[in-house]
Amino acid sequence: MHLPAELLFRLREIFPIDALATGEAERIAYSYDNSRRQALPDAVVFPTEHAQVEALVQACRAHEVPVIARGRGSNTTGATVPVAGGVVVSFERMNRILRIDPDNRLAVVEPGVLNGDLQQALAAHGFFWPPDPSSAPWCSIGGNLACNSAGPRTVKYGSPRENTLGLRAVAGSGEGFRCGTYTSKGATGYDLTRLLIGSEGTLALITEATLKLTPKPSAVRTLRATYRDVGAAARAVARIMAQPVTPCALEFIDDAALKLAHDHGGDRVPLAGAMLMIEVDGEPATLPSAVDAVSAAARGDGLEELRVAETAEETRALWAARKALSPAQRTISPHKINEDVVVPVSHLPALVDGIRLLSAKHDVLIVSFGHAGNGNLHVNLLPRDDAERERAHACLADVFALVLSLEGTLSGEHGIGMVKREFMPLALEPATLELMRNVKAAFDPDGILNPGKLLP
Amino acid sequence: MHLPAELLFRLREIFPIDALATGEAERIAYSYDNSRRQALPDAVVFPTEHAQVEALVQACRAHEVPVIARGRGSNTTGATVPVAGGVVVSFERMNRILRIDPDNRLAVVEPGVLNGDLQQALAAHGFFWPPDPSSAPWCSIGGNLACNSAGPRTVKYGSPRENTLGLRAVAGSGEGFRCGTYTSKGATGYDLTRLLIGSEGTLALITEATLKLTPKPSAVRTLRATYRDVGAAARAVARIMAQPVTPCALEFIDDAALKLAHDHGGDRVPLAGAMLMIEVDGEPATLPSAVDAVSAAARGDGLEELRVAETAEETRALWAARKALSPAQRTISPHKINEDVVVPVSHLPALVDGIRLLSAKHDVLIVSFGHAGNGNLHVNLLPRDDAERERAHACLADVFALVLSLEGTLSGEHGIGMVKREFMPLALEPATLELMRNVKAAFDPDGILNPGKLLP
Repeated sequence: MHLPAELLFRLREIFPIDALATGEAERIAYSYDNSRRQALPDAVVFPTEHAQVEALVQACRAHEVPVIARGRGSNTTGATVPVAGGVVVSFERMNRILRIDPDNRLAVVEPGVLNGDLQQALAAHGFFWPPDPSSAPWCSIGGNLACNSAGPRTVKYGSPRENTLGLRAVAGSGEGFRCGTYTSKGATGYDLTRLLIGSEGTLALITEATLKLTPKPSAVRTLRATYRDVGAAARAVARIMAQPVTPCALEFIDDAALKLAHDHGGDRVPLAGAMLMIEVDGEPATLPSAVDAVSAAARGDGLEELRVAETAEETRALWAARKALSPAQRTISPHKINEDVVVPVSHLPALVDGIRLLSAKHDVLIVSFGHAGNGNLHVNLLPRDDAERERAHACLADVFALVLSLEGTLSGEHGIGMVKREFMPLALEPATLELMRNVKAAFDPDGILNPGKLLP
Repeated sequence: MHLPAELLFRLREIFPIDALATGEAERIAYSYDNSRRQALPDAVVFPTEHAQVEALVQACRAHEVPVIARGRGSNTTGATVPVAGGVVVSFERMNRILRIDPDNRLAVVEPGVLNGDLQQALAAHGFFWPPDPSSAPWCSIGGNLACNSAGPRTVKYGSPRENTLGLRAVAGSGEGFRCGTYTSKGATGYDLTRLLIGSEGTLALITEATLKLTPKPSAVRTLRATYRDVGAAARAVARIMAQPVTPCALEFIDDAALKLAHDHGGDRVPLAGAMLMIEVDGEPATLPSAVDAVSAAARGDGLEELRVAETAEETRALWAARKALSPAQRTISPHKINEDVVVPVSHLPALVDGIRLLSAKHDVLIVSFGHAGNGNLHVNLLPRDDAERERAHACLADVFALVLSLEGTLSGEHGIGMVKREFMPLALEPATLELMRNVKAAFDPDGILNPGKLLP
């Protein structure tokens, strides 16, 4: 505990006794996230209302103590690890759905609402909120917004940046503010809403969000296509995205990942050189022609089998296997390096081929799968011992260089956090980074919000 | 001419002789925009490349001379009027389409490309860029981005903020930079792209844009529904948007506007208490069920006639009449006040009713029409003499108060410019405005970019 006594006294005024934790056990529980990086905070607070967050940031600012917003810690980049100590703000108790407004296709939520809980509440009204990370059942909307977390449906429906209308937040200055609109369109001043989305808690703490909802399509069809090798599958992805019917999911799974998924999901998951899961949605009458269009594009050199999932159970098994891939890899390598690089779709074949070469060159197992329709691949380096870990780090630098040479960028949906911070100068020009630093200073003049993240 | 001699000398170094205008005739030509506000610039320049824009901003910054970006001056808010003099930068000669990349569903353009020219070039590849202001044939992409200009298709496909992936620009500091990605997804740092979109040239001058393209739907059906009165039509809009089939246009035209359109478009435009134009698009097989769904919602108390446009010519006539509404009003009132307020769709009936009352209260003719699917109404106050102009100004303040009381905002797509600047404090909290000012300072430390606009 290194908090100044005066600050601790103030925190006790702001928070009830059960909403301020300073014991070691609680501090350890909030010291790490899914990146497996770790650093002890000095205290953890559990706000239940906006005013507490304002008072907290003002108090911490007065003492130059770091403030780290935290959803459910499911991010993979260390974005919520309190590397410089300070106060972790867990939003888990600010978890009310404040308003579901189907007539205006929007919902107002507190940041601690779980993505899965929101989807369930919306389904009753015939709507959904498009962002759907694999961690949907246990990740929070606040975390989704902070990291611009996306998921398979992004290829058709967009990320949080395309699906959020307004925010309430507290800047690093300690000032609360609202931005954006309660309407589906707006041109009243600067777009601070999108600026906060993906800023990983470094500009402001989000205390309320107005989300844009999408009507649930009435029907879905899932196809699986297996290919001789990863290159053939990647070329099929580029063909599918170059025709007009946009699938609502287009997932790529390489041979090593398929093996993992097969171990987890059983024989309903095929073994092959690579597999695509393709999903189309819409009104029932439209689906046969949509299935035809994507099927035609999926066919080509190297296709082994193309079939439409016959039963809901078969579809569920495919998705369960796909969603289990991230956790399953921990069994191979507790120190897996989980990247989520993104390239223009037409360069996906070159990316997949290049990764194969780098895996061989550095002698590191790499398992790749992900949201191929966006060119967004989860490239997982799976070192099994210390020597491999060192090789994996060298390999990673080569992977980023490859991605940038293919007009891609470091992250499609995981963000930067601690782990990709050092690579930012490869992806962004000095002038762009400088503007980002100026923007940071505009919101957080003393640099107390989530220090050590995002900007190098 | 009030430019310092040293600056003028530098401008002559940067620009060829035919790309720098200081004569009165040219300065007058670039002194106004579609707001009919006017102020003389000290010079006009016509860059053809990014490097010139960098050099220009650096030179002007050294002399604290204003720099005003200009597309084609079609905006209605005075956003391009050089109220403090300085140098107008007309991007009309930076009008190359640099790259159309159908495989990755994107295009790279210079800011001076006309919206209509781009659409034509994209159509050959089976794509379109969704923003489609009425001024599409003569407005520029740079202007669309600067003002977040939208149009009828926004209800389904979004505004420039949802359809732009990356930008190249020059900040008020004189530094050139790139932001965003060449991929359809990204989480690499702050979203400066969306921050610049809608910033009306106050943060940076856009010199290149990477636009997200959408496949052209293969078929469209247009419906027209006439209603007894505006309230009945507004209630139908709310019903249409509360069901799952999203129209690709949902336009509202009140009785006074219909009369104007009828005068312009002839008998194919009906006279009625109000009219909705409803358009649905998609694969041909899907349209009958989509037409059924929106038709069912369009029916209700006050519906007079609902029909599907039978011929392409009938559809064209409806759109021609709709698109001619803005210019046609000038014939009634050269001093029309053209607002584009927006409210949640469910509050549209209350907005429409309230505007009727305000029109009567202030004795000012008001013609309303617009993008009802977004709750975005063009409220046109048409004073015919000086006394009416004074009453119109008082009425306008009441209109904004009404809009804000209905959870709406000042502008859906025109932006703020000069004319709505004074109303910003009604719509935004002081803390939000303060953050916007900080953001402005982060990009434009000396405040030389488009002074007197957007922020009060």
